[in-house]
Amino acid sequence: MTGERSYGRTAEGLRPVSFEPGFVRSATGSALIAIGETRVICTASVEESVPRWMTGRGTGWLTAEYGMLPASTGQRKARDVTKGRADGRTVEIQRLIGRSLRGVVDFSALGERTVYVDCDVLQADGGTRCASITGGFVALQLACERLVADGLLERLPLTGSVAAVSAGIVDGVPLLDLDYPEDSTAEVDANVVMTGEGGLVEVQATAERTPLSRAHLDDLLALAERGIAELRAAQEAAVAAGRPA
Amino acid sequence: MTGERSYGRTAEGLRPVSFEPGFVRSATGSALIAIGETRVICTASVEESVPRWMTGRGTGWLTAEYGMLPASTGQRKARDVTKGRADGRTVEIQRLIGRSLRGVVDFSALGERTVYVDCDVLQADGGTRCASITGGFVALQLACERLVADGLLERLPLTGSVAAVSAGIVDGVPLLDLDYPEDSTAEVDANVVMTGEGGLVEVQATAERTPLSRAHLDDLLALAERGIAELRAAQEAAVAAGRPA
Amino acid sequence: MTGERSYGRTAEGLRPVSFEPGFVRSATGSALIAIGETRVICTASVEESVPRWMTGRGTGWLTAEYGMLPASTGQRKARDVTKGRADGRTVEIQRLIGRSLRGVVDFSALGERTVYVDCDVLQADGGTRCASITGGFVALQLACERLVADGLLERLPLTGSVAAVSAGIVDGVPLLDLDYPEDSTAEVDANVVMTGEGGLVEVQATAERTPLSRAHLDDLLALAERGIAELRAAQEAAVAAGRPA
Amino acid sequence: MTGERSYGRTAEGLRPVSFEPGFVRSATGSALIAIGETRVICTASVEESVPRWMTGRGTGWLTAEYGMLPASTGQRKARDVTKGRADGRTVEIQRLIGRSLRGVVDFSALGERTVYVDCDVLQADGGTRCASITGGFVALQLACERLVADGLLERLPLTGSVAAVSAGIVDGVPLLDLDYPEDSTAEVDANVVMTGEGGLVEVQATAERTPLSRAHLDDLLALAERGIAELRAAQEAAVAAGRPA
Amino acid sequence: MTGERSYGRTAEGLRPVSFEPGFVRSATGSALIAIGETRVICTASVEESVPRWMTGRGTGWLTAEYGMLPASTGQRKARDVTKGRADGRTVEIQRLIGRSLRGVVDFSALGERTVYVDCDVLQADGGTRCASITGGFVALQLACERLVADGLLERLPLTGSVAAVSAGIVDGVPLLDLDYPEDSTAEVDANVVMTGEGGLVEVQATAERTPLSRAHLDDLLALAERGIAELRAAQEAAVAAGRPA
Amino acid sequence: MTGERSYGRTAEGLRPVSFEPGFVRSATGSALIAIGETRVICTASVEESVPRWMTGRGTGWLTAEYGMLPASTGQRKARDVTKGRADGRTVEIQRLIGRSLRGVVDFSALGERTVYVDCDVLQADGGTRCASITGGFVALQLACERLVADGLLERLPLTGSVAAVSAGIVDGVPLLDLDYPEDSTAEVDANVVMTGEGGLVEVQATAERTPLSRAHLDDLLALAERGIAELRAAQEAAVAAGRPA
Repeated sequence: MTGERSYGRTAEGLRPVSFEPGFVRSATGSALIAIGETRVICTASVEESVPRWMTGRGTGWLTAEYGMLPASTGQRKARDVTKGRADGRTVEIQRLIGRSLRGVVDFSALGERTVYVDCDVLQADGGTRCASITGGFVALQLACERLVADGLLERLPLTGSVAAVSAGIVDGVPLLDLDYPEDSTAEVDANVVMTGEGGLVEVQATAERTPLSRAHLDDLLALAERGIAELRAAQEAAVAAGRPA
Repeated sequence: MTGERSYGRTAEGLRPVSFEPGFVRSATGSALIAIGETRVICTASVEESVPRWMTGRGTGWLTAEYGMLPASTGQRKARDVTKGRADGRTVEIQRLIGRSLRGVVDFSALGERTVYVDCDVLQADGGTRCASITGGFVALQLACERLVADGLLERLPLTGSVAAVSAGIVDGVPLLDLDYPEDSTAEVDANVVMTGEGGLVEVQATAERTPLSRAHLDDLLALAERGIAELRAAQEAAVAAGRPA
Repeated sequence: MTGERSYGRTAEGLRPVSFEPGFVRSATGSALIAIGETRVICTASVEESVPRWMTGRGTGWLTAEYGMLPASTGQRKARDVTKGRADGRTVEIQRLIGRSLRGVVDFSALGERTVYVDCDVLQADGGTRCASITGGFVALQLACERLVADGLLERLPLTGSVAAVSAGIVDGVPLLDLDYPEDSTAEVDANVVMTGEGGLVEVQATAERTPLSRAHLDDLLALAERGIAELRAAQEAAVAAGRPA
Repeated sequence: MTGERSYGRTAEGLRPVSFEPGFVRSATGSALIAIGETRVICTASVEESVPRWMTGRGTGWLTAEYGMLPASTGQRKARDVTKGRADGRTVEIQRLIGRSLRGVVDFSALGERTVYVDCDVLQADGGTRCASITGGFVALQLACERLVADGLLERLPLTGSVAAVSAGIVDGVPLLDLDYPEDSTAEVDANVVMTGEGGLVEVQATAERTPLSRAHLDDLLALAERGIAELRAAQEAAVAAGRPA
Repeated sequence: MTGERSYGRTAEGLRPVSFEPGFVRSATGSALIAIGETRVICTASVEESVPRWMTGRGTGWLTAEYGMLPASTGQRKARDVTKGRADGRTVEIQRLIGRSLRGVVDFSALGERTVYVDCDVLQADGGTRCASITGGFVALQLACERLVADGLLERLPLTGSVAAVSAGIVDGVPLLDLDYPEDSTAEVDANVVMTGEGGLVEVQATAERTPLSRAHLDDLLALAERGIAELRAAQEAAVAAGRPA
Repeated sequence: MTGERSYGRTAEGLRPVSFEPGFVRSATGSALIAIGETRVICTASVEESVPRWMTGRGTGWLTAEYGMLPASTGQRKARDVTKGRADGRTVEIQRLIGRSLRGVVDFSALGERTVYVDCDVLQADGGTRCASITGGFVALQLACERLVADGLLERLPLTGSVAAVSAGIVDGVPLLDLDYPEDSTAEVDANVVMTGEGGLVEVQATAERTPLSRAHLDDLLALAERGIAELRAAQEAAVAAGRPA
């Protein structure tokens, strides 16, 4: 990894980020998020019921699912259904997305509804789980605004916003927002989920080859904080553009 | 169904058709097809091997898979993997897509390669299996042109083109290209797959409520022939636009 | 396929057809159908309930299942349960059988009952899906007559009868009722389901190698119409022989 | 159970037994066995290979599978494939059939071949596992005779014959060959598998309600010995009738 | 097998037996049973409900499950969940354990409760199914005593005790309690389940290589009776030691 | 959580830790680890092969599996095999254990072998994933020492040691090693995996209710570092006690 980073960015730079809000018109809320060559279709669907074990409490639930379209990777990836079960990585990722988004939902304000956030990867070039959280939040907020616009809710059932970004150590250098070639050679890979106010929602740092020092962990957290501020601004613009009239 | 048809079209009219070739950049060939509000992501991925039972014959294979994104329908559809198996309708559709596309592939010219055509429905408003065949062919041809451009093949391993359209009887009237509300109330539903030269590849006509007369079957086949000529022109334009430089 | 057809029949001839009504005494209605060397055990079982989503409407339902005994083919076929799921061909066939039989049931007259029609292939020599529909209808009618004889229904909940036959193009010649060797070399394979009154219920024509012309499709439909008239007569005799005293 | 036994038989009597050898013409060997109202289709299919872990030893293998057609019982039984796995009772029974038949096969004489014995219950009125063993042996012997007649084997790879019968205690009385109503009320239920020479191959005795005394176990074994002698004679007649010319 | 038996025992000797009652403190009742090198963790868990089809009858149910820890055998055994289903041997064993324990439960006295007895093999050296029954009964009784001590039941819902032991013929010699090397070479393998009062609950004798004579079956039953008397004494001591104060 | 902590410990205290090395004698290496009422059976099994995709590289692999015995929790937990697949939490945990242990294995030194580390929870009172890593390492080291003692390896294929501990924020107070009641009410839950030399292998911090500040994250990491030093000493004593003579 002695070469340049993609898009000519520095160690502290994000890849170009863009959103296409309302990408799936049959969903209550949706957005196509692109971060460099990574693109994820995010939708939020609302059902007027909750899982049986929650019935009668007056509160709602959110569940997230993650999938990769077969052609999203360089070598075609067989569908999970072919093996009859989601693979381990998929399970791990969708649990992370669900926890992260649930962290900013006010389930009492949502009422007895279930929000399904589906994140389907169209192109995978590193950072798909973080893109899913960042794009999934936009879909979620647009769905909530739709419920308010339709008179089903009086106010947004959200306590804040949430976004995620990766950071890692490659050849000893802390880098923000790894693309796939960087991720493949990283010594350490971290995913950081933060609220718009800068609180940590989830930190996952994994040393792939050599253990991580506390100093390097601090570097990664600082990089992530910068990146998430930038992502937050892009989320706000996307929600404004996609908001129901 | 006494009202007007969507897009103000006549009984013999298609909904607006458009293609976005190269929609998935990680695929060998791809296209997003839109027919009215129905939108399907079609990709063609090429693997340099064939199923074990075909090895050593020097010929290739094509297999098709079909899926619906959970938010593609008005009410969220659970992923097949949740139940551990593809549902019956999915199985039926992906077998139809595979048969239809295989009908125009010259497998000797393809050599020992497998082409996977994946059709993932982004929005479903009727006619998704026909859109998958029509868009899948564009993805397939673009993938084949890529193999030729890359010097892996000397000539296109295709014997022609293929497209599909639905037709049906609604309130006693034969209509071309049913949207979802029309499909839900149709007495007869037919899917017709034809080559660009006008040969029939597959005809599936199902009388949902009342049996179908031979005369009405002839009407449906005539409507389909008109629609497919129009789809064929749109396919050619899409391939021309998406062809590798 | 330059040789003679089995049983010395012409291009327009059916193989010998026979029924053994009441073959499974534990079923409400049943028949063993033999068409040449193809033999299928058909049973109709009645349950005094409907699927949950239909409860309270006062109408019934019919569902069909299809299976092949492992020794029914020349090379033993593994049971579907071994792989944990029905294979694609099985799914496609049982959906066809179900649609075809439901087309002649008056579900209001049936009341809140479910009829299960099970078609288990004892020997497979081509045309098992058509034999399943033709034999399945006999089992269905015998079961309905049993319900009337037992006083559970006032009248038969049937709007007519249904039968099915295959036809195909082999070496350019349209043939009725393909056996397995013919089916393996056919350019076009069609399955036609018709009511006793001659209405089309389902047409499925697939060009395996070369596209099908409209003229040839007409030939196949005409052959099928002849064959179904003959099958209808055999069905009537079987029901008369098997009818509860 | 104070009433008469079916078919007017005594405590020591079998129900009427009959065989239809060659019932499934596509199988290497087959027989339809009927014991009273219990009827089982038994087939033996031969594959010219063995499971991978046995390859190269020069010896063969036999595996048995058991299934019930959905309409074989008074209340329709869902197919195992619907739940994606064989139920516990099915697993237990097919293991018993396999062990019993393997007990009389000379696998060195069979060579590297696998025999599949499939037992599919057409009607179930008690004793289906015993009928499967007894009928399965006839199918197995007919298949072996076919291999000899075809010159694939020099001699029968069998060391003897095997048959099975149930016995039980009902209302304190030891009875041979329980039918379903008897089985449902039995205090003790035993299945006994014996060779034609009278050796025990498997004994399974289960006290459903009250423990079983040694004296009663002896009574059941004596009853079974009588029944198996009679079944052995019927097997011999069936093989003679079905033997390849 | 011309050598000495493990632990220097005679043909009629059990391996050393010990129990560690209360081994799993989160279970209602539990015991670790060791018979030589075979060790099984047995727990009894009580749920305050019954399967839906039993609701409202006022009676309870008991179900048993059996598993092997992957490292319990010399060569690691893959978990059943890896293949998505319990293997045939597991199914057969857990049905045997369930039948055996249900034979001594008074389900009316238990009330609408379900007892789950789980038997997880820590080390397998032959006789795991018998050890599961013998140890499972101790866990069951301790759980029942806990229910009485907690005032949930007035009296023990047990009609007696149950234990199991294996016996077999090795090199023509009847032996009690086979260890794994003996079991692997046995001509006949029997598992005998008896009540504390000496009644037979289940007898399963399987001739692996040569049929079994009645005389030898009698020998095996006599050996088993001796062994079970010894096991019964050990069970009583374990229950006394583990009984809630 | 205003009350005392279990075992009278301070916010910085671990629960009592103990190991029983060699607990499963059929495993190459094993240990039963107890941390308070949490007890996990850890085994390491060695196979003399690697997954197919790794063959021929001369390097080894380690895979970890995690399970809970049904009675390990207060309310019985159904086995994963009952549903046919591991649940999401299990998948997530066994991936964490595998990554953590692989971080200290020198796969070149191991050669083409696969080590399976199985962690089966006997009692669950919080912290089972951390106990699995800490106990799994002891089993792993004992297995490696066994390979060296048996002459299969020249030196230990380990680059260091690894242990894990949880920490969390309860009622605003950072606490080390949460038990189940503490974990259930924690605002933040973190699992920290470190090498014996103090390097971070994996950090997973999840804010369940309120976001986490950087200051609190630092507190949790400091607590974890203390706890892991103590666990490391206990691991060393366990390995010394269990080391092959």
